Amino acid sequence: MGVTAARGFRAAGVTAGIKASGTPDLALVVNDGPSLAAAGVFTSNRVKAAPVLWSQQVLKGGLVSAVVLNSGGANACTGPLGFQDTHATAEKAAEALTLNAGEVAVCSTGLIGERLPMAKLLPGVEQAAAALSADGGEAAAIAIKTTDTVHKTAAVTVDGWTVGGMAKGAGMLAPGLATMLVVLTTDAQVDSAGLDAALRAATRTTFDRIDSDGCMSTNDTVLLLSSGASGTVPDPDAFAEAVRAVSADLARQLIGDAEGASKDVRIDITGAATEDDAVEVARTVARNNLLKCALHGEDPNWGRVLSAIGTTAAAFDPDQLDVAINGVWVCKGGQTGDDRSLVDMSAREVVITADLHAGTAEATVWTNDLTADYVHENSAYST
Amino acid sequence: MGVTAARGFRAAGVTAGIKASGTPDLALVVNDGPSLAAAGVFTSNRVKAAPVLWSQQVLKGGLVSAVVLNSGGANACTGPLGFQDTHATAEKAAEALTLNAGEVAVCSTGLIGERLPMAKLLPGVEQAAAALSADGGEAAAIAIKTTDTVHKTAAVTVDGWTVGGMAKGAGMLAPGLATMLVVLTTDAQVDSAGLDAALRAATRTTFDRIDSDGCMSTNDTVLLLSSGASGTVPDPDAFAEAVRAVSADLARQLIGDAEGASKDVRIDITGAATEDDAVEVARTVARNNLLKCALHGEDPNWGRVLSAIGTTAAAFDPDQLDVAINGVWVCKGGQTGDDRSLVDMSAREVVITADLHAGTAEATVWTNDLTADYVHENSAYST
Repeated sequence: MGVTAARGFRAAGVTAGIKASGTPDLALVVNDGPSLAAAGVFTSNRVKAAPVLWSQQVLKGGLVSAVVLNSGGANACTGPLGFQDTHATAEKAAEALTLNAGEVAVCSTGLIGERLPMAKLLPGVEQAAAALSADGGEAAAIAIKTTDTVHKTAAVTVDGWTVGGMAKGAGMLAPGLATMLVVLTTDAQVDSAGLDAALRAATRTTFDRIDSDGCMSTNDTVLLLSSGASGTVPDPDAFAEAVRAVSADLARQLIGDAEGASKDVRIDITGAATEDDAVEVARTVARNNLLKCALHGEDPNWGRVLSAIGTTAAAFDPDQLDVAINGVWVCKGGQTGDDRSLVDMSAREVVITADLHAGTAEATVWTNDLTADYVHENSAYST
Repeated sequence: MGVTAARGFRAAGVTAGIKASGTPDLALVVNDGPSLAAAGVFTSNRVKAAPVLWSQQVLKGGLVSAVVLNSGGANACTGPLGFQDTHATAEKAAEALTLNAGEVAVCSTGLIGERLPMAKLLPGVEQAAAALSADGGEAAAIAIKTTDTVHKTAAVTVDGWTVGGMAKGAGMLAPGLATMLVVLTTDAQVDSAGLDAALRAATRTTFDRIDSDGCMSTNDTVLLLSSGASGTVPDPDAFAEAVRAVSADLARQLIGDAEGASKDVRIDITGAATEDDAVEVARTVARNNLLKCALHGEDPNWGRVLSAIGTTAAAFDPDQLDVAINGVWVCKGGQTGDDRSLVDMSAREVVITADLHAGTAEATVWTNDLTADYVHENSAYST
């Protein structure tokens, strides 16, 4: 059910004709209230798509009544006219639903640098408005797919209230955030400040710690909308944990569907002096192309883990580094440890653990292997 | 001629049996003087191979009488015993040539985390000492190849003195430095301090600005040895330029032979506020896997250039960015510029130019595309 798992929300996904493939490409999520409280986090890329610039303005008011999302075009690097296109999209949704356009967020995903086909997109908004339903969450999740092979939804219910959501993203997965659009909804009664706190805490350790290919998007948007329709004010910790759990579920689904990947790789850094050190080391290991190739070849090449760690500024002594691959400590004290032939890497999920022996902080980053399929998919994306 | 282009040097390359392939794997370069002045730069990776730790000590004395180089094993992450192996290698060369072991530099390249087969390597040093000749530069360059498809040498002669050199490196090419071993020689009369200044200036804009795959090695070493055999004290600027020219030539050869690459890509950043900004932007663009895939597909996907630039801390306004690919300004003012169909990317060399419009500083970084062949080669390297 995704975004319609929580009460007070309707959604739809339709085919507006933006994508040449003729598959669904426009989604609409509407909050029927009584509350319209919302929070959002956006890409930290300084080159931001028009819908990001627009939605950041909308979120400053702390209220979102509807979200329009399209696949088939990112509307990034499109200048003032691209921004006008986003504005017109919000106005069209506001007109169709009798809302305030200043409370309509817009998200786009697809190729950078091309204008959206507004003659198709605007009628699509009307079509989606007419198709809204309280079980439209799946259709909406399907309509935001780009190179995703499956649509992604998740939900948890706690003490009479629910947090649900949908996500898309398969390439350009890197923190800050990934090339992802995520809409989370809840019927718990939480104000904008409470939503913002829960959302930032959740994204920091979930969406911000998946790093499929080190490439940061211009369009990343994660929204959290509250309808308050459950009539229940949740315990803040329980609410934060529910938002984190749904975010972690969706983040794991994103890594599992990354473009061309054959391995989902969890990198656990332990024994770090600080959490920042642990994240820096984990991310550096996650981005090492040579290691990612070795993982693809099911080669427990721990030398590439050490050479990656060696490029960071984290506190560690090279002669104290321990590295395990799928539980086998193939490197102990910076040199050869247990027999690498004991490592079984045949499963899709691989766990790399590195103990820095410099403290008690830790962090986990998820990544993928690097494959010929990734190269093929991304060498032919725009042409 | 490479390292024997300058007078006062002899070299050899032999097959010691370190490599399973049975190809040459041990090189020796000897400086017959009268000067033994030398300088060196080494990997900035904090995980350093035993030969790097050894040679750094040797270079502190400013004198190098011989360099032993082996392919077939990096002797990195091998602990105290690995360091003893390097020491024994220097001692063997000193014994064979009646030199001081403290003036014998050692370089190794190959797989990380495995001890060298000393029972083969030490007799190889004796064999190489017996094979030394004043035209052995080619044989030495051949013996240091790993995944290199061709050996790399270069030389320039100016006013009666010569700078020559050899290089190896095909993967793990990233700054600070790449996975490269380079030995430069000169018969000009320059003391250690003068060699050091010229070498650091040269590597800063050549070997440090090739970034094939963003992966930094544990073994990188660039040495510059002077025999003084020309009897000529060169003009310092002319000498620095000769060292830079030979370094640039070898660096370009390394990029041209990078593992699996089908494109050599020059990234020129102009209009930067500072040279550091220009280098940061160039390097970030060079490391963007999605862009590297697009280059492989001959797709002038400038959106991926902008999304990479947007992740840097350099000074720029997103609405002022101009990007050209092979001379066609496909992005102007942060949005679509000239027709991308005008871009011809069929040649192996591709030039990406980005003007930040934030100042007058500039920098160039070389990289390669990302290919299925790179994945194949590096997913099967150690197993």
